[in-house]
Amino acid sequence: MIEPKTLKGFRDTTPELMIIKKEIIKKLEAIFESYGFLPIDTPALEYAEILLGKGGGETDKQVYRFNDHGGRDVALRFDLTVPLARFVSQHYNELTFPFKRYHIAPVWRGENTQKGRYREFYQCDFDILGTKSSESDIEILMIIKDGLLSLNIGDFSIYVNNRKILNSLLTKLDTTEKSAQILRTIDKLFKIGAENVYKELVDVVGISKKSTEDILKFLNISDSNKTGAVENAAIFSTLENYKSVLGKELSDPVIETEYIFKTLEKLNILKYFSYNPAITRGLDYYTGIVFEVYVKERMDFGSICSGGRYDNLTGLYSKTAIPGIGAAFGLDRIISLMEEEKILKLQGSKTKLLIFNLDDKLNPEYHKLASKFRENCINTEIIYEKQKISNQFKLAEKKNTPFVLFAGEDEIKNKKYNIKNIISGEESKLITFDEILKILKS
Amino acid sequence: MIEPKTLKGFRDTTPELMIIKKEIIKKLEAIFESYGFLPIDTPALEYAEILLGKGGGETDKQVYRFNDHGGRDVALRFDLTVPLARFVSQHYNELTFPFKRYHIAPVWRGENTQKGRYREFYQCDFDILGTKSSESDIEILMIIKDGLLSLNIGDFSIYVNNRKILNSLLTKLDTTEKSAQILRTIDKLFKIGAENVYKELVDVVGISKKSTEDILKFLNISDSNKTGAVENAAIFSTLENYKSVLGKELSDPVIETEYIFKTLEKLNILKYFSYNPAITRGLDYYTGIVFEVYVKERMDFGSICSGGRYDNLTGLYSKTAIPGIGAAFGLDRIISLMEEEKILKLQGSKTKLLIFNLDDKLNPEYHKLASKFRENCINTEIIYEKQKISNQFKLAEKKNTPFVLFAGEDEIKNKKYNIKNIISGEESKLITFDEILKILKS
Repeated sequence: MIEPKTLKGFRDTTPELMIIKKEIIKKLEAIFESYGFLPIDTPALEYAEILLGKGGGETDKQVYRFNDHGGRDVALRFDLTVPLARFVSQHYNELTFPFKRYHIAPVWRGENTQKGRYREFYQCDFDILGTKSSESDIEILMIIKDGLLSLNIGDFSIYVNNRKILNSLLTKLDTTEKSAQILRTIDKLFKIGAENVYKELVDVVGISKKSTEDILKFLNISDSNKTGAVENAAIFSTLENYKSVLGKELSDPVIETEYIFKTLEKLNILKYFSYNPAITRGLDYYTGIVFEVYVKERMDFGSICSGGRYDNLTGLYSKTAIPGIGAAFGLDRIISLMEEEKILKLQGSKTKLLIFNLDDKLNPEYHKLASKFRENCINTEIIYEKQKISNQFKLAEKKNTPFVLFAGEDEIKNKKYNIKNIISGEESKLITFDEILKILKS
Repeated sequence: MIEPKTLKGFRDTTPELMIIKKEIIKKLEAIFESYGFLPIDTPALEYAEILLGKGGGETDKQVYRFNDHGGRDVALRFDLTVPLARFVSQHYNELTFPFKRYHIAPVWRGENTQKGRYREFYQCDFDILGTKSSESDIEILMIIKDGLLSLNIGDFSIYVNNRKILNSLLTKLDTTEKSAQILRTIDKLFKIGAENVYKELVDVVGISKKSTEDILKFLNISDSNKTGAVENAAIFSTLENYKSVLGKELSDPVIETEYIFKTLEKLNILKYFSYNPAITRGLDYYTGIVFEVYVKERMDFGSICSGGRYDNLTGLYSKTAIPGIGAAFGLDRIISLMEEEKILKLQGSKTKLLIFNLDDKLNPEYHKLASKFRENCINTEIIYEKQKISNQFKLAEKKNTPFVLFAGEDEIKNKKYNIKNIISGEESKLITFDEILKILKS
C-alpha cells in the first residue's frame, strides 16, 4: 500500500475551491475579451536555455530542471513572461500588432514554502505588445479596475508610478549610475519605513545626504505618509511641482504621466488610482509606468496585481525590439483574500434540483425527467438507488442542492410532481413540469 | 541570441486554436455540470512512486521523471486516472459518494511523436465513483451523447460492450485463464480484421480451433461485419441469443447489459448507441461495461471518447475498494477532427466593434465610448494611434472584426456616430449610441 499524499508545496484543488477559481477566471476572461485580448497557451516544459537565458541567480535555483529522455536540458516554466517573449519572437510574422494576449496557467518554483505560497501556482498575465502608446498604458489600468470591480473584491487602490520620472531626477542630481540600486531601495518603503530608506540610501547605496534628502523630498517620502500615495487633485499639483523642479528638458515623463491621470479623470475613474512614487518594482526590465494594487482594508495581503511598461521584451530571442506593457493578477492571493473576507462562499455544488428515488423501477423515468430539466438549463441529479427519504434529504443538504423533487408511480403517470425548496421549506404538490420550471427559474 | 523554439513533441496554442479549445471545453463543462459533476485539479508533479505504482513497463519509460531540489523522486502526471485514485484515497472522508468529478488538464508522455500525437496533451476525464449502479453507467453514456451533440461533431456511434459477457462465455468454454489475452486480441478487430483475429487466437494465444470458432460466432465477428457493431432491435435479439447459449447461471451480465440498452431505448436515444462485442479496451482494470466512440464518416480518426467500469480504482492507496465508471473525451483529437471537417472556423478574435482613430486628441473620448459599449456586453477595441483610414480598415479585416465605428470631433460632440458592417458593407450614418447597440445586438 502506498500512502496517498502530495509533494511538499503542492496541493489538490477540491471541488469547493475549484468552483470558486473557475468563477474568478471566467470573470477576468470576460473583461480581457471585452478589450479584445486573445488567449494563448505555451508548453509547461521548455529548453532550460530559453527559460533561464534572462533569469538571475536566485530564480535559477528555484527552477525544476532536468534532462529528458532525449538528453535535452529542459525545465518547467517559472513564469509566463519568458514564454511570452519566446512565443512572440517565434510567431512574429503570424501576429497582428499591437498584440493583446492573456494567459492563465500554472507555473512552478521550488522555493521555500510559507503560508499561502506554493511551489505550483497559477499566473494570470495580460500584456499589450508592439506599441509605446500611452493609450495602451491606460487600457491596462482600465482592465485592472474593471477586473477588480467585477470580482467585487472591496475598496482597492491602484498605485501608479513612472520610473522615468525618478530617472529624470537622478539625471538632474547626477547620480544615474546608481539608479537601479536607488529604485530598489525606495521600493522597500512599505516594508522598512521612510527613515530606513534614508539610512540605506546613505549607508549602503552611498548617496550623499544632500542628494538623498532631495530625492526623498521630491518623492514626498516621509514618515507622515506611510504608503507614499498621492490622490485626486494632489496628483496634479505634485506633477506640476515636478515640472518646475526638473525644468523643461527633463519633464517629458511627467507630462506623459499627467496625460494618463488626466485621461483617467475624464473617464470618471480617477478615484480608483493613486500616484505613488515609492512604487518602483524590483525587476530591472521595467522602463516606464509601473503599478501595484492593494485592497485598502487588507494591505497585509500585499499587491494583488502588478506590472509595468518595458522597452524590449524579446531581446534574447530576436533582433526586433518589441516594447509593451504587461500586468498579472495574483490569482491565488485574490482567492485567499476573497475566502478570508467571505466575499465568495464555498459551494458544495452547482446543482439546482435533486430528483429523489422512491422506487428503483422508476429509474428510467427519473432519467427522462432529469434530461428534460437539463434541456431547460437546470442542473439536475438523480439518486441511483432507493433509500430512506430522510437519507435522501440529508444527501440534498450535504450537496447544498436548493430544490428536491419527489414522484412515485402515480405522479410519473399523471405528470404531476412534488417539489420542495429545502432552504425555505416551501413545498408545492402535484404541479406540472412547466410550473416547476417557473419556480426553479425565479 | 537564443533561437526561439519549442521542444520536440510540444507546441504553442495560438489564439485561433485557443479560442476553439476554450469553446469546446466550455460546452463540455456545461454538460458535466448539468449532471452535477464537480471540477477538481491535482498537481502536475507527484511522487514517482504514487504515479508509477500501477504503471506497466511501457508507461514507465515514457514518464518525465527526475529528482527535485529536495532529492525527491518525482514525475509529471501521464494521465488523470492515477491522480484521481490518489485524490479519492486521500480525501475519502471529505467527499460525498457517489462522487462525480471532471478534470480537464494537460498530461505529459515522452512517447515517440507522430502526426497528431504530442508529448503534452489535454485529457478531459469524467468519472462516477463509489457506486456499482447501472444507473451510473447509463448517466455516463447519456453525457457522452449530450457532449457530442452539443459540439455538433456529426453522426457518431457509441459502441458499448460488457466485458463480463465474454468472461461468462470463457467460463462456459473453460478457457478463463487466458481471458486477458483473448480480450486484447479481440480488441484488434478494427485494425487487423476477423481472419487475423482468428489466426492470432489459435496460433499466438493458443486457443483450440473449436473454441475460437465458438467465441467468434458468439460475438458475431466475421469479415462481413467489419466493425462488429449491432444496432437497434438486433441488439436485443443478440442478447436474447446470448442468454440461451450461456444458460441462466451465466446470464447476469447479459441481463445487466439488456437493462442499459432498454433504458436508452425508453429515453429515445438508442439510435446513438451500438452493442459491440469487439470493443474490449486494452487496459486490465476494466471489469464491466466498456465503450468507444466513433464519428461515422471519420472512422480513421479512431475513438474520440472511451472508458469503462472498474471494481477497484484505489487498491494501491487504500484498503477501501472504490468501484466506479469513467470516461475521457479525446480533446485534441476532437479539435483536429472539427478543424478538418470545418465544423469550427478559426476566428481571429472575439471582438465585435473596432473604434477607428480619426484624431489622437479624441483618444480619451474613444476610451469612454468603448467603455460604454463594454458595459453593454459588446467586446470593443480602439486604435491607439491615428493612421490612414485604409490601414484601419485593413486592421479590422485582419482582426475579423464585424463592425467598425468612426467619429470625429463633431460626431463626438453631438453623440452621433457612423458605423459600418464590414462583412455586408452596410453603413449607418450619424446614429445614436442606442441605435448602434440595437444593430450590434441584432
